[in-house]
Amino acid sequence: LVNELAGKEAPDVTAEETGQKYKNLLVSCEGGLRTITLNRPPKKNAITEEMYLEWIAALEEATADPGTVIVAITGAGDYYCSGNDLSNFMNIPEGGIQQKAVDSGVLLYKFVAAFIDFPKPLIAVVNGPAVGVSVTVMGLFDAVYSTDRATFNTPFSALGQSPEGCSSYTFPRIMGPGKASELLLFNKKVTAAQACELGLVTEVLPDASFQGEIWPRLQALAKLPVNSLVYSKALTRDLEKETLHKVNKMECDRLVERWASDDCFKAIMAFFNRKK
Amino acid sequence: LVNELAGKEAPDVTAEETGQKYKNLLVSCEGGLRTITLNRPPKKNAITEEMYLEWIAALEEATADPGTVIVAITGAGDYYCSGNDLSNFMNIPEGGIQQKAVDSGVLLYKFVAAFIDFPKPLIAVVNGPAVGVSVTVMGLFDAVYSTDRATFNTPFSALGQSPEGCSSYTFPRIMGPGKASELLLFNKKVTAAQACELGLVTEVLPDASFQGEIWPRLQALAKLPVNSLVYSKALTRDLEKETLHKVNKMECDRLVERWASDDCFKAIMAFFNRKK
Amino acid sequence: LVNELAGKEAPDVTAEETGQKYKNLLVSCEGGLRTITLNRPPKKNAITEEMYLEWIAALEEATADPGTVIVAITGAGDYYCSGNDLSNFMNIPEGGIQQKAVDSGVLLYKFVAAFIDFPKPLIAVVNGPAVGVSVTVMGLFDAVYSTDRATFNTPFSALGQSPEGCSSYTFPRIMGPGKASELLLFNKKVTAAQACELGLVTEVLPDASFQGEIWPRLQALAKLPVNSLVYSKALTRDLEKETLHKVNKMECDRLVERWASDDCFKAIMAFFNRKK
Repeated sequence: LVNELAGKEAPDVTAEETGQKYKNLLVSCEGGLRTITLNRPPKKNAITEEMYLEWIAALEEATADPGTVIVAITGAGDYYCSGNDLSNFMNIPEGGIQQKAVDSGVLLYKFVAAFIDFPKPLIAVVNGPAVGVSVTVMGLFDAVYSTDRATFNTPFSALGQSPEGCSSYTFPRIMGPGKASELLLFNKKVTAAQACELGLVTEVLPDASFQGEIWPRLQALAKLPVNSLVYSKALTRDLEKETLHKVNKMECDRLVERWASDDCFKAIMAFFNRKK
Repeated sequence: LVNELAGKEAPDVTAEETGQKYKNLLVSCEGGLRTITLNRPPKKNAITEEMYLEWIAALEEATADPGTVIVAITGAGDYYCSGNDLSNFMNIPEGGIQQKAVDSGVLLYKFVAAFIDFPKPLIAVVNGPAVGVSVTVMGLFDAVYSTDRATFNTPFSALGQSPEGCSSYTFPRIMGPGKASELLLFNKKVTAAQACELGLVTEVLPDASFQGEIWPRLQALAKLPVNSLVYSKALTRDLEKETLHKVNKMECDRLVERWASDDCFKAIMAFFNRKK
Repeated sequence: LVNELAGKEAPDVTAEETGQKYKNLLVSCEGGLRTITLNRPPKKNAITEEMYLEWIAALEEATADPGTVIVAITGAGDYYCSGNDLSNFMNIPEGGIQQKAVDSGVLLYKFVAAFIDFPKPLIAVVNGPAVGVSVTVMGLFDAVYSTDRATFNTPFSALGQSPEGCSSYTFPRIMGPGKASELLLFNKKVTAAQACELGLVTEVLPDASFQGEIWPRLQALAKLPVNSLVYSKALTRDLEKETLHKVNKMECDRLVERWASDDCFKAIMAFFNRKK
């Protein structure tokens, strides 16, 4: 999290060089497997406001493309994703902090909704540590494959905040309330092996063989009949889609209140002071 | 699955010899424990249309019998059950494939509903490999005891199909969506030990002692007060019974579409071609 | 359970000596951490009618106190809690057994509702064996830390009874129906390690270091911003609060029937006869 607080945008050379349409993502599609790579390695792939919008657009593009059967999300560099870029909070609009909180809530709501509504199999390829909203939305993925080097951390209350990504709904259902509370309320960081035992991670692979093993496996899955996959996913998802959107709204409303609260302000200040 | 495709009904000598009322099942009841044995060992207990109807009737008989406290389902021979007998698809009625799909959907709906509504403790005694619908309905059982020799396989998308038996609802709730997808979407076959870790199987016993250990245990359970068992099961089931029937309907509707689809046709043809 | 049947109230010296407001509980609060200790060690902390009322009052007190951030429940002596004190059934009012059952149902409903509605993080510190309702309400706690010496037992059907504490709803969701049935229907007693694997217990600690490790950890949690904790818990709880109250009502209604039934009478008599 530390690096993201400085929040100066590093020049995104890669995107310009390759002529990609996204500044913060690399997107490729081969043989039915579409890969969306979070591509701000100097910032541990922390998500800026621009990057949230690009990620949403990349998911919409994946939905619309008839050649895409399966979608994988992964990170460039050592991190999977360090979560919300805290520099997002520094760009205060005319309406002040309250307006900033409202705007951030709207953006987060759209971002999480894109995962709730995504119709094709969505797989996280967790190449390194994952933090915050990049962890919470995993409860909306269809599978999460992780290197044993990854960790998973959702430090909400430590920052005066509260859960998002529908994790207040999905985590207790995946791991039971007695285990979910440690992550959602008590800021516990877990290893990939622990996250797998909790059911959040589907399978953990050794870091040395992770990249070599996982991609051929996903390429094979991308050969399955897309309609059977999409319809099967719909059966598992449709019944609770309305509830998930409702949860997303409740969580974002609460965060709008939290972001403008003294708790959050004090926690962020304490964070900066520890940094010094 | 291979053997079932030939689909020629072996003469059911056992049933005729014993005067049993079912052609494809053996049913006995002793000391409150009723045992329903799937009895087509030459076909790995694959379920024909006739056998679906008999299984439904046997559950109704178990409900009605005041002497039945607990019901166990098991398989004769090496297999527990190899799932839907694919020969069911070969007996095409006058209305063609579309009519066949609709009829099969009606039968499947009734079959699964019989598990949703079954009021007494229902226990699977998994004596060997289990495939397809025999696995998916396990999410509706009260306990699943398995030999370590068993495997569990639900290859829906590989056959251009989609989940049934309310598994699109029960599996994500039992094991979390990240693990359920591997079974429901990606055709993963799991061992008994893995199925136990996932929560689908209650306990795994060594094959050598399986039969010797499990039956005395169930006979002991059958001595418990039947009303406490039935009322306790009702408390765990009644609240979601309506949802389960709705899920069953959604799954069957989707399968009616799938069975008449090109995906399914191509997958079955590919299966036959691999066989040659 | 055996000791509680005699049901003679031991003089509660401790309470009188310390001037505490509760006869059956010890309550303290330090640095945001409020500890409620079940304090009838000679009776293994079995819950009398008076103690149910005190426990409800102590939770209300914790809710109202602005200095309380986190609440821990633990037991004095070797046991965490041996469940409902069966001597409660012996004090038969003028209305007879039926009236007794109704009154007990009302009390149980209020007791469980206090857990459903409790707004702050609630943690069980399980210092020893736990039985019956003290186990079932754990599904409503936010975390359960247990010594490896503890066991968890909910022998409902063995006593002609049925589940309470919303366990008919929470247990199948925490551990899957195939594992929950063994506890709720088949009277299985599990170790702390097993309960942890099932997801009912958050973490197991060695008995030798349990007290020394757990309290500093909870004291640290009590330094977190209370609003973030309360709002985060609300997000995980509010959506199903109505359902939980409905389940509580269904369970209590069923127990009122069970308590006045022959099954229950016979089971209690058999229990007494085994004791002789």
